Amino acid sequence: MAVYTDITDEELNALLSDFDLGAPLAFKGIAEGVENSNFLLETQAGRFILTVYEKRVREDELPFFLGLTRWLAQHGYPSATPMIDKAGEALKRVRGKPCAIFSFLPGLSVRRPTAIHCREAGQGLARLHLAADGFALTRANDLGQDAWAPLFATLRDDAENLKPGLAAVIDADLAHIAANWPTDLPRGVIHADYFPDNVFFQGPTFAGAIDFYFACVDQLAYDIAVALNAWCFEADGSFNITSARALLAGYEAHRPLTPAERAALPVLAHGAAMRFFLTRLHDWGATPAGALVRPKDPLEYERKLAVHRSAPDLVLLSEVS
Amino acid sequence: MAVYTDITDEELNALLSDFDLGAPLAFKGIAEGVENSNFLLETQAGRFILTVYEKRVREDELPFFLGLTRWLAQHGYPSATPMIDKAGEALKRVRGKPCAIFSFLPGLSVRRPTAIHCREAGQGLARLHLAADGFALTRANDLGQDAWAPLFATLRDDAENLKPGLAAVIDADLAHIAANWPTDLPRGVIHADYFPDNVFFQGPTFAGAIDFYFACVDQLAYDIAVALNAWCFEADGSFNITSARALLAGYEAHRPLTPAERAALPVLAHGAAMRFFLTRLHDWGATPAGALVRPKDPLEYERKLAVHRSAPDLVLLSEVS
Repeated sequence: MAVYTDITDEELNALLSDFDLGAPLAFKGIAEGVENSNFLLETQAGRFILTVYEKRVREDELPFFLGLTRWLAQHGYPSATPMIDKAGEALKRVRGKPCAIFSFLPGLSVRRPTAIHCREAGQGLARLHLAADGFALTRANDLGQDAWAPLFATLRDDAENLKPGLAAVIDADLAHIAANWPTDLPRGVIHADYFPDNVFFQGPTFAGAIDFYFACVDQLAYDIAVALNAWCFEADGSFNITSARALLAGYEAHRPLTPAERAALPVLAHGAAMRFFLTRLHDWGATPAGALVRPKDPLEYERKLAVHRSAPDLVLLSEVS
Repeated sequence: MAVYTDITDEELNALLSDFDLGAPLAFKGIAEGVENSNFLLETQAGRFILTVYEKRVREDELPFFLGLTRWLAQHGYPSATPMIDKAGEALKRVRGKPCAIFSFLPGLSVRRPTAIHCREAGQGLARLHLAADGFALTRANDLGQDAWAPLFATLRDDAENLKPGLAAVIDADLAHIAANWPTDLPRGVIHADYFPDNVFFQGPTFAGAIDFYFACVDQLAYDIAVALNAWCFEADGSFNITSARALLAGYEAHRPLTPAERAALPVLAHGAAMRFFLTRLHDWGATPAGALVRPKDPLEYERKLAVHRSAPDLVLLSEVS
């Protein structure tokens, strides 16, 4: 929720002179994206989002992200897609930083998704998996299952500070997940961060997904597990089976799960909760006391871990009725 | 440059249900306005800005600000103007805070204004003064000349911390300004914060002004003095007479100055520099060390004070040639 890079009118005009988008008509910093600077840009050609990549995005990975959203747009999937300049380039530079100009994707994210939103979100996720099929570039999941134990080795003290005794519990979780993790499920491009704030609706209808900066190639069903955790828990920490069934039913309307994928959902959901618990724990520990922007609370995902640990069948029970 | 208030989709829908603006199509926090939260809002009726007023805006003054921008729009002056709901109300509430939905004013502000921009800005300022004529509500300038000495009495230590010996210099400035301040110049509604970031252009052409939250009734020529300080200094601290002549010529193309107004420009410019020096000094002293957002540097206006103190005729010399 921050604009880091300041772009002058001269710098904007110089950037736009490489494109066929006409003159700028409006330009405002927007509070979207934690790790990039984003600007609403209106030109004679329409509305766009200018994204300036700050240091946390690795520049050598940008061709994957930009190429993926272009591929998705060309294959009918609604997303913000990068414009190419007169020389055919999407990845540009402004003020010494990499940047790209994206189409403006209309829509609103929802704060408290209903089962109807979950069904639509499930459809949107399956459509994403299908539309990405055939995309030639690849990117490993650097926050995948094999990264969690090494990451946690650096965070044991933070876990104990959060909740005494937690480190041993996480160790046991990690061992359980590693022993049961599937390796031969169908693979493809996954979003890997398919949270409600990255999904847009028009009224109750799915309108597209944004923020593909964690996208990678991994087991497709893991993306469903991330979404179940992100969309189907109530504020009080309970798992909403109605919402989970709706999300799965929406997904399977476009891409039915294999029996192996369905059977793996409990451990995938347990692992997906671990992934977000660990990165939130990391960001929490790395934030100085008194900072203006507090990172997301790792305890939310510690509670989701506890649900999957104590009631793994919950996710299995959420079959399409 | 911050979004303070978080609005959920439910809260937005409830607010919009009072208006005839159709359903929301897009909603994004924008990094505009230091003291309010602003959101780009697109509905079936077009594009708008939702402004949520945070604690620094006094709620009992909002009818003046909202009424003024509605009046300006009705009298042909381009600005962001508040929409009224089905009951005829512009001032609404969301999440317990006052808010209003404004028309979207296209345009870009310029970082380094050229003389051409200054001429256009001068025209825009004169048009504002003429368009506001007849507006019935009134608001005193609580940061006007009589407020400066009492304000500085609370800031003497900050001035000395900024630059040893500065307090005595400011005392002498304040005495000079008070002794020479005009009181019988033509009065009317002034913007009082007519800086380049509050003025929009389309290409080189004036397209409107925003951010009327300092607007008040005062001597009109004081507004010109604020603008001369804001638009006509170079980054190296020198006064650009070409830009100042252009700004005045633009202004006088719509509203010629009286001889008394012209003669008062040096002390008005000196006083206008004092007003922004004092509030920046206040904000500087009130900001804890290490804060994420640094306030604007008071030294910029300390240098402008020095120019007006040592060369008061500079502004007089900037007559239309």
